[in-house]
Amino acid sequence: MTVLLISRSDSAATWAAELRRQAPDMPLKVWPDDIDGLDPASVTYVIAAKPPPGEIARYPNVKAVLSLWAGVDHITADPDFPAHLPIARMVESGLTNGMREFVMAQALAAHLKLPDYLNQQRQQLWRPEIRGPHGTEPLVEEVTVGILGLGVMGEACARALADFGFPVVGWARSPKDIPGVESLCGDDGLETLLSRSRILVNLLPRTDATEDILNADLFAKLPEGAYLINVGRGEHLVEADLLQALDSGQLAGATLDVFREEPLPGKHPFWTHPAITVTPHIASITRVRTGVGRLRAAIESFERGETPEGVVDPKAGY
Amino acid sequence: MTVLLISRSDSAATWAAELRRQAPDMPLKVWPDDIDGLDPASVTYVIAAKPPPGEIARYPNVKAVLSLWAGVDHITADPDFPAHLPIARMVESGLTNGMREFVMAQALAAHLKLPDYLNQQRQQLWRPEIRGPHGTEPLVEEVTVGILGLGVMGEACARALADFGFPVVGWARSPKDIPGVESLCGDDGLETLLSRSRILVNLLPRTDATEDILNADLFAKLPEGAYLINVGRGEHLVEADLLQALDSGQLAGATLDVFREEPLPGKHPFWTHPAITVTPHIASITRVRTGVGRLRAAIESFERGETPEGVVDPKAGY
Repeated sequence: MTVLLISRSDSAATWAAELRRQAPDMPLKVWPDDIDGLDPASVTYVIAAKPPPGEIARYPNVKAVLSLWAGVDHITADPDFPAHLPIARMVESGLTNGMREFVMAQALAAHLKLPDYLNQQRQQLWRPEIRGPHGTEPLVEEVTVGILGLGVMGEACARALADFGFPVVGWARSPKDIPGVESLCGDDGLETLLSRSRILVNLLPRTDATEDILNADLFAKLPEGAYLINVGRGEHLVEADLLQALDSGQLAGATLDVFREEPLPGKHPFWTHPAITVTPHIASITRVRTGVGRLRAAIESFERGETPEGVVDPKAGY
Repeated sequence: MTVLLISRSDSAATWAAELRRQAPDMPLKVWPDDIDGLDPASVTYVIAAKPPPGEIARYPNVKAVLSLWAGVDHITADPDFPAHLPIARMVESGLTNGMREFVMAQALAAHLKLPDYLNQQRQQLWRPEIRGPHGTEPLVEEVTVGILGLGVMGEACARALADFGFPVVGWARSPKDIPGVESLCGDDGLETLLSRSRILVNLLPRTDATEDILNADLFAKLPEGAYLINVGRGEHLVEADLLQALDSGQLAGATLDVFREEPLPGKHPFWTHPAITVTPHIASITRVRTGVGRLRAAIESFERGETPEGVVDPKAGY
């Protein structure tokens, strides 16, 4: 048995070092350094982050692929990826908690209009009253946050926002029971959520059903002046529709952490739009320290013939 | 009995309207509109926000002054202010909760290095790894927040930060018992707090003892690369020392909501410093809707010969 780490992420060396430190007994090889002389038939597990297309297919005896990230589109986008292979998604505590921190920070920033104050700072403008007449500024209790996607990360964000005092409505494929959070399903549920959400957070997985879901139709169903936080995938967003919704005032602003093309190309209008906050795909980061244990546990689970937590349902696509 | 509202804040009209709506029985007059023909001897209570110097002294029978704000320096700075008059500070739920929101937003922004990502956006730079090697970025559990001042607002901020997962250390004149928060006093306590605080929040009242407290000596006791959030008063901060601490790297950044001169003058270096976030004194806003009840209760308390909550201790100065 060989476990092969195939990563084109810049965290590859950190993962290799931490795997060797925490799991010295794991028969680990690292692509591309250890490929020479490696028998492809010996590889039974692949740990993957953005593997080169065709690479995983070179190993005929792989039993399962372990994604270093929560999304698995970086693996399934490979046209040669062997479709029968189980994929285990990495959703460890660091990833979940980091997302919770980022979403809380962005929701509060949107609520407090901090991006607008920053724009004022650039113009050296002292104009306090951009949140309504002085003395009537809303508090979090008056600002509903809608969350699209109530997986492990969506649930953690929903709980944190609700604990802090935001009214929170969530939407998922199947019903969820999260204390303090109103959970909705289906098309009607989505309409209801949108009609109430002053702040909309997208945490959906990328699937055929969710691609382009953040479009003009959806924006039109939000209250005027709503704020979008996209921490799902760039492919969820119809970029031209966002620009139009911002220009018309239907949306007041957006924080975008993910993009159709990453890094975001130099001439892209998102970079300079005054109502758009761009962050370079940093909302959700798998932590190496806590992630190694999850990888090890997943491999052990597969070895026992079980299905570890986080295995992707091929029909759902996540 | 007449209650006179003397406010040079732009919220004066909102307060007058809400007082008349919620307390129609209160014998309210509003400076300067209602002054003509008003017998100065009839005024028994003054509700004040930044009153013109000398104005309060014109009314000989005032029993108490009610500050619309939590700080009272806008009243006591008047050299003609009758020093014997009790002042009741306004600390209502909206003010407290608003401060909690702002401090949480700024602490998370500092922790996540959002100001640095925004600076990168302005330069169209896609550089994710500014929070340490990819996969090792700290979570809130690893970032201690120190809070100077554990009054009503300081305590609310400390609790919220601790509930979210930050280790929190607070410092106050007298010992406090706040669940989940380590509370310290005295010079030794301050040293201990500073040595641990990656993020330092100033919520002290402005007094002779606290003026200039945010100075080079204090900054030198923080861990290198700490972040300052000043939501107390501009007079707490030695401005030149801050600029030097930022230039040397001792401080990584600062969010400043209060200034020695407000509005912050047009040529002030804080406006354009890349490591400084300037907000126009918006962290803490008394909410009119919840504030009127507090004013009414304070007047009723004074009328019964009692001391309402929030009366300033003249020796402490807050």
